[in-house]
Amino acid sequence: MPRLAEMTREQVADLAAHGVAVLPIGSLEQHGDHLPLGTDSLLLEEVIERALDDRGDVAVSPTLPFGFSGHHQFAVALSLPPKTLLDVLGALLDSLVAAGFRRVLVVNGHGGNIEMMSQAVKLAALDHAILAACCSYWELLDPRPGAPGHAGSFETSLMASAHPALVRPPMHGPRELPLFDRRLVRGLHVERHGEWPRSGGITDDPGDGDAAAGAAALAEAAARLGECVDALLGLDLPSDDPTPENPEGAAR
Amino acid sequence: MPRLAEMTREQVADLAAHGVAVLPIGSLEQHGDHLPLGTDSLLLEEVIERALDDRGDVAVSPTLPFGFSGHHQFAVALSLPPKTLLDVLGALLDSLVAAGFRRVLVVNGHGGNIEMMSQAVKLAALDHAILAACCSYWELLDPRPGAPGHAGSFETSLMASAHPALVRPPMHGPRELPLFDRRLVRGLHVERHGEWPRSGGITDDPGDGDAAAGAAALAEAAARLGECVDALLGLDLPSDDPTPENPEGAAR
Amino acid sequence: MPRLAEMTREQVADLAAHGVAVLPIGSLEQHGDHLPLGTDSLLLEEVIERALDDRGDVAVSPTLPFGFSGHHQFAVALSLPPKTLLDVLGALLDSLVAAGFRRVLVVNGHGGNIEMMSQAVKLAALDHAILAACCSYWELLDPRPGAPGHAGSFETSLMASAHPALVRPPMHGPRELPLFDRRLVRGLHVERHGEWPRSGGITDDPGDGDAAAGAAALAEAAARLGECVDALLGLDLPSDDPTPENPEGAAR
Amino acid sequence: MPRLAEMTREQVADLAAHGVAVLPIGSLEQHGDHLPLGTDSLLLEEVIERALDDRGDVAVSPTLPFGFSGHHQFAVALSLPPKTLLDVLGALLDSLVAAGFRRVLVVNGHGGNIEMMSQAVKLAALDHAILAACCSYWELLDPRPGAPGHAGSFETSLMASAHPALVRPPMHGPRELPLFDRRLVRGLHVERHGEWPRSGGITDDPGDGDAAAGAAALAEAAARLGECVDALLGLDLPSDDPTPENPEGAAR
Amino acid sequence: MPRLAEMTREQVADLAAHGVAVLPIGSLEQHGDHLPLGTDSLLLEEVIERALDDRGDVAVSPTLPFGFSGHHQFAVALSLPPKTLLDVLGALLDSLVAAGFRRVLVVNGHGGNIEMMSQAVKLAALDHAILAACCSYWELLDPRPGAPGHAGSFETSLMASAHPALVRPPMHGPRELPLFDRRLVRGLHVERHGEWPRSGGITDDPGDGDAAAGAAALAEAAARLGECVDALLGLDLPSDDPTPENPEGAAR
Amino acid sequence: MPRLAEMTREQVADLAAHGVAVLPIGSLEQHGDHLPLGTDSLLLEEVIERALDDRGDVAVSPTLPFGFSGHHQFAVALSLPPKTLLDVLGALLDSLVAAGFRRVLVVNGHGGNIEMMSQAVKLAALDHAILAACCSYWELLDPRPGAPGHAGSFETSLMASAHPALVRPPMHGPRELPLFDRRLVRGLHVERHGEWPRSGGITDDPGDGDAAAGAAALAEAAARLGECVDALLGLDLPSDDPTPENPEGAAR
Repeated sequence: MPRLAEMTREQVADLAAHGVAVLPIGSLEQHGDHLPLGTDSLLLEEVIERALDDRGDVAVSPTLPFGFSGHHQFAVALSLPPKTLLDVLGALLDSLVAAGFRRVLVVNGHGGNIEMMSQAVKLAALDHAILAACCSYWELLDPRPGAPGHAGSFETSLMASAHPALVRPPMHGPRELPLFDRRLVRGLHVERHGEWPRSGGITDDPGDGDAAAGAAALAEAAARLGECVDALLGLDLPSDDPTPENPEGAAR
Repeated sequence: MPRLAEMTREQVADLAAHGVAVLPIGSLEQHGDHLPLGTDSLLLEEVIERALDDRGDVAVSPTLPFGFSGHHQFAVALSLPPKTLLDVLGALLDSLVAAGFRRVLVVNGHGGNIEMMSQAVKLAALDHAILAACCSYWELLDPRPGAPGHAGSFETSLMASAHPALVRPPMHGPRELPLFDRRLVRGLHVERHGEWPRSGGITDDPGDGDAAAGAAALAEAAARLGECVDALLGLDLPSDDPTPENPEGAAR
Repeated sequence: MPRLAEMTREQVADLAAHGVAVLPIGSLEQHGDHLPLGTDSLLLEEVIERALDDRGDVAVSPTLPFGFSGHHQFAVALSLPPKTLLDVLGALLDSLVAAGFRRVLVVNGHGGNIEMMSQAVKLAALDHAILAACCSYWELLDPRPGAPGHAGSFETSLMASAHPALVRPPMHGPRELPLFDRRLVRGLHVERHGEWPRSGGITDDPGDGDAAAGAAALAEAAARLGECVDALLGLDLPSDDPTPENPEGAAR
Repeated sequence: MPRLAEMTREQVADLAAHGVAVLPIGSLEQHGDHLPLGTDSLLLEEVIERALDDRGDVAVSPTLPFGFSGHHQFAVALSLPPKTLLDVLGALLDSLVAAGFRRVLVVNGHGGNIEMMSQAVKLAALDHAILAACCSYWELLDPRPGAPGHAGSFETSLMASAHPALVRPPMHGPRELPLFDRRLVRGLHVERHGEWPRSGGITDDPGDGDAAAGAAALAEAAARLGECVDALLGLDLPSDDPTPENPEGAAR
Repeated sequence: MPRLAEMTREQVADLAAHGVAVLPIGSLEQHGDHLPLGTDSLLLEEVIERALDDRGDVAVSPTLPFGFSGHHQFAVALSLPPKTLLDVLGALLDSLVAAGFRRVLVVNGHGGNIEMMSQAVKLAALDHAILAACCSYWELLDPRPGAPGHAGSFETSLMASAHPALVRPPMHGPRELPLFDRRLVRGLHVERHGEWPRSGGITDDPGDGDAAAGAAALAEAAARLGECVDALLGLDLPSDDPTPENPEGAAR
Repeated sequence: MPRLAEMTREQVADLAAHGVAVLPIGSLEQHGDHLPLGTDSLLLEEVIERALDDRGDVAVSPTLPFGFSGHHQFAVALSLPPKTLLDVLGALLDSLVAAGFRRVLVVNGHGGNIEMMSQAVKLAALDHAILAACCSYWELLDPRPGAPGHAGSFETSLMASAHPALVRPPMHGPRELPLFDRRLVRGLHVERHGEWPRSGGITDDPGDGDAAAGAAALAEAAARLGECVDALLGLDLPSDDPTPENPEGAAR
C-alpha cells in the first residue's frame, strides 16, 4: 500500500496527478474495561489495509490518531475540541490539494468525528476544484444489530478478529441503556448530561467477542471501501472554472 | 404560542423552571427560480406554529434566519461560516441555560445546518446539566420520495400549501442530477466542486406543487414535533452533579 | 416592502444592481417587568415597515433577532459575544456584496450592538468597493428626554403605540439611577460591575406609556430612515479600483 | 508621574489597592504630508503628562502605540485588526485587575480605536467587580470647529504647541471633503470605499498650525482628564458579589 | 512499551498516578528526492522505541503525524498552521492531565514544531499543577556536524540505520547553501522568502548515508531520552496549591 | 535615529524602499523587589539607541511594551496571551510590508516572547517576498555567566549602567534556584507549576549591580545589533516571484 509517510516527494507528485489521497481519522478514548483506547484507529487501519494494500492508485496518509472525544473524558480520552478538529481537517485537506491531489477521501473510525468531517469535506469542495468525499467505515456495511455502538458487541467482535490479544476479558455490559441509543421519536436526537459515565461508557453488551462475525464485517467494509475508491476514480473531475463561480472566500 | 420575544422576564423565569425552550434555525438562500430565499425558515415556522401554538409548556425563540449556505452563494445566500454558526448556536444555548432552561430543543429547517447543530447540542449537554435535543423537521416524517431535496417537489409542495402566493411559476427542473443526490456506494458521501451551479441550484423537478401532499407533510411534521416536546418533558433531568464528572472545560 | 425572505434569486439580482440592502439587527433581552424581551426588534421592525413598506428600491433582510446583551443576562437575554457578533455581521455584509449589492444599510434597534455594527460597516467598506452605512433608529430622532434609555419612558411609549397588548402594567421605575446614565465628566464613559442588576434593569421611570408621543417618535424615525435610503441612493458609488488602493487583506 | 514601567512590583501592589490604573492607547498611521505617524500617541501622552504628572494616586501604563488603522494603510500605518485589538485590550485590562487594580481608565488618542475600547471596557466591567472607564481626549473638550478631524487644523494646532519641530510645512488641505465628515442625515453614518485615499488622507485644511489654540486645547483636555480621575476615585467600588450575579463567562 | 493506544482505561488510570505520559510529535513533509515524507516521525519513533520499550513507568501516546511545515509546501507537506498546532498540543496536554497524568513529556522530531511545542508546555505548566517537559531528539545529542539539518547527512545516516529500504538513491546535495543555515551574526536569525525551494529543499549534502554513524546517534538519543524520563520521575511534583497562586485563566 | 513615530508618510516611503524596519518588543512584568516592571523594554531601547542613533538606513518602530508574561502574573505583569501576541506581531509585520519595507528586523528584550517572535518572522517570510529577521539582544553577546536570567546579576548590572535611579536596593537573591534554570539533561526543558512564585520571581543573586559590566554588555550588544542591520542590508532581496512558489495562504 502506498503510504504517504514512506513515499518521496516525487512519488507523491506522480500519484497526485491521477490517484486518490486517503486520510484516515480515528480517536484515542476509553472503550470500556476490555478494549484499548486506540480501538477506533486500529479497526480503521485494519479495514484500510485490507482494502488498499495492493492498489497503486491511492496514497494513504498517516492516521490522525485523535478526534473529538469530549464525552469520553469522564474516564480517559485525548480529545480535540470540535473547532480545532475542523481546523486540522481543513489544513490537511488544503495541504493535499496543495500537493496536487484532486481526489481526496476521508475515512473515519469514530462517531464523534462525523460532524466536523462532513463539514470539512464540504468546505474543501467549495474552496477547491476537486472531488472530496468521506465515509465512516461502519456505514459502508449492510445494517447489523448493535453496529456500531461503542465498545459493545460490534467493535468487540471486530477486535476479536483483528487484534485478539488486545481484547481483555471479562467483558461487562452497560450499567443502563444510554439515552442516545434509544429512539424516542423518529428523527429526534437527544443528549443528556452525564449519560456516558452513567451507562459505564459502553452502549451494549460486548458478549464474548464473535471473531468470525468480526472478520466478516471487516471483509465487507474493506470490499466497500475499495468500491468507494473506484467510484471516485470513475467520476469526472470538476472543471477548473465552473460557471457561475462560487464567490471566493465566501464559504469560510 | 408562548414566544420569547413577546414574554417578559418574569414569564420566562416561570416557564424555564419546567418547560422546553425551542430554538428554530433556518436559512436565507436561493431556492431556484420559483421559491423565495426564506423557504426553509417559512416552512420551519409553519411546522412550529401548527405544533406548538396552543401549548403552555414551551417557549419559542425567534428563528435564527441565517445558516451555513456557502454552497448557495453562487446565486444568492446570506451565509454564516460553520465556525461562526457553531459559535452562535453555542452562545444561544448557553444563554438559554443561563436563563434557567434545562430542556432545550433546536429545530432545524435547512440541511446545511445539520453538522453544526448536532455538534452544538452535544457540547451544550457536555457543559451543562441539561437535556439538549435537536431535529430537522423533515427527518421527523415517514420517508417520502424527493424529501427533502432542495427547491424540488417536496419543498414546493409544502410551500404550495403554506404560502401559495410565494410559489412563482414556471418551475424548472435541475439541469442535471447533482452528484450529492446520487448514491454511488452505501455510506459514501461525495462533494464535487461546482455541482450546485452546474445543476441549476435545485435537486429534482418541482412539478406543479402538490398542495395537498404538502399539507399532509406539514401536518405530520407538526404532530411529530409535538411528540418530541412530550418526549423531552417525559425524561428525567440529569442530576446536577453526575459521578464521575466530566472534566470542566475539556470539551471545548 | 420587498423582503429578501420572500424574493426569488432573480428578483434579488435585479434589485441588487441599483437598490439598497437593509439589514436590521435587534436583541432579545429583559426589558423590565412590563416590556417583552423582543422590544428592540419589534420597535425596529415597526420603524422599518413604516419607512420602507411602499418602496421598490430596497430589499429588507430578516432581522438578526439576537445581539450583544451580556449585561442583561443577570435576568434573561440571548446574547452573542462581541467577537461572534462581529463575525456574524461581517459574514452577512460579505454575503450581501456577493449577492451583488453595492449599497448596504444596517439599521439597529439595540444599544449593545453599536460598537460591533460600526466596526463591521467600516471593515466592509474597506474590503469591498461599496457604500456601507449604519444607524440606530433612535439616533435619527431630534433629541428627546429619556431617549433611548432601556425599558424606560421612551421605549414604553413606542411600545404603547406599536404593540399596546405587549405592555404589561404595573410599570416600575429603576431602584436607583444607573451610573452609566449619569454624566460625571464630559466625554467620560464609566461602567461599574453589577450596575444593571442593581438598578433593576431599567434606566428611568416608564410612566404610563405615552402612546401619542410614541407614535410621533415612530413616525419621525420612519421619515428619517426614508431619508437615509434616499441619501444612499443619491451618492456616487466608489469606482471599482480607487487609486491608491488599500492593501488587500490588511484591514482584518 | 508614577509610570508602571518605572515602578517595582511592591510599589504597584501598594498603589493598586486604592489608585487608578491609566492605560493610554494611540496609533501609528499617516497624518498627511506634514505631521508624523505618531501624532495621536504624542498628543495623548502630552495630555496625560500635563494632567497626571504630579499625582500620586494613578499609575500610568506605557502607551499601546498601535491601534486599528486599516483605513490609513493606503499610505502607511501599523494596524491591529479589530479583533486583535479587542483581544489586546481585554488582556491588558484583565492583567491590571490581576495586579490588584479595581479602578481602570483607558485614555484614547485615535478615532479608529473607539469601538473596541468601548467594548473592552464593557466586557471588563461585566467580568470583574471593578470600575472600568474610558475616554478619548478630544471628547473631553468643549466643542471646537474641526475637532478632532484627522491631520487637520485641530491636530496641527496641538502639535504646533506640543511638538513644533515635528510639524513640517508646507501643509496641504484635503483634495476633497471626505464623505464620512459630511452629515447627510442626522444619526446616519456612511462609509465609502476609497474615501481616505481619495481625500488625500486628511479631513480639513490644517492652516498654519495655531500653537496658541493648541496650547489652550491641551490645557483644557488635561484639566478634564484630572477631573475624570477624581470622578473615578470618588465613586464607590462595586461590592465583590453583586446580587443577582451575572452568569460567569456568559458575556464573552 | 506501554502504548496508550493498546491500554485500557484502567491501565491508564493506574499508570497516570505515578508514571510519565510521552507525547511524540512529528511531521509529514518533503525530505528531498531520497528520503520519505515521514522521515521525522519514523526517526522519532525509532528513538522512542529504543529508549522506552522495556519500561513500565511510561505511557506513550500515538505520534501526532503532522506538524507545522508551511515552508515545505512548495513541494509537498501536510501542515498544521501554528495556531492550530498550538491548539492541538494544548488540547492533548489538557487531556493527559484530565486523564490523571502529572508528569508529561513532549518529544519532538521536527524543527518546525519547536516554537509551538515550547509554548504549549509553558502554558500547560501555568494552567495545571504538573511537571511538563519537552525536547527535540537531536538536541539530546552531543553536537555533531550537520545535525540536524533537513534531509542532509544527519537524517540520511539515521534513516540508513533505521529504515534502509526507505533511503532511495541517488542523493543530491542542495542547489545552494540556504541562508537560514549560515550564521551571519551571533544570535541573529534570518528568513528569506523562497529560500527552501531555492536550495532544493535540503540543507546539506546527504552523502551516501552512513548507517553506522546513524546507529550511534540513535543509540545516544535513546539513552538520553531514558535519562529525561528518569529526571522527570526524580523531581518533586508541584504542590496542588502553590502560594501565591497564578491568577486562573490569565495566561491564555 | 529615524523613529517611525516622528516621520511623515513620505519619509517612510523613501526609507522603506531601501532601509531596514526595526520592531522592538519588550515586556511589562515584575522584576523582583529592586528593578522596575519596564526593565526589559528599557534595556532593549538603550541597546537600540546606542546602536542605531546615527544611522539613516533604519526606521525604528515604537516598542511594543507588552509581551507574553503569564508566568509573572503571580505578582504583576501586563501579559498578552501567546496567540494574541502572534496575531499582533503578524499584523505589525504585515503592516510594515504594506508600507513598502522589504527588510524587517524584530529586536526582543524579553525571554517570554521568543517562541511567538520566531514563529511570526517565519510566517512573514513565507507570506511575503521579504527578508525577515529577529534577535534577542542578549543572544548577540558572547556568553556571560548569569545572562540573561531574570532580575538577576545580568539585568541588574545593565540597569545600573543605563538607569541607575531605577535600581532600588536592597537586592534579594532567589528563595531557591528555579528548576527551569537547572540543566537536568542536555536538551531537556522542564517547567514545573508554581516555580516562579516559589523562587521569589528572580533567577539568581543580583549582587550590587555592576555598572561597569553592564556598560560593557550594552556596548557589545549595540555593536552587534549594528552588525545585524549591516548584514540585512548586505543580503540580496528575494525575487518577487521565486519558483516554485509557496502555495498562497497555505502557511497560516
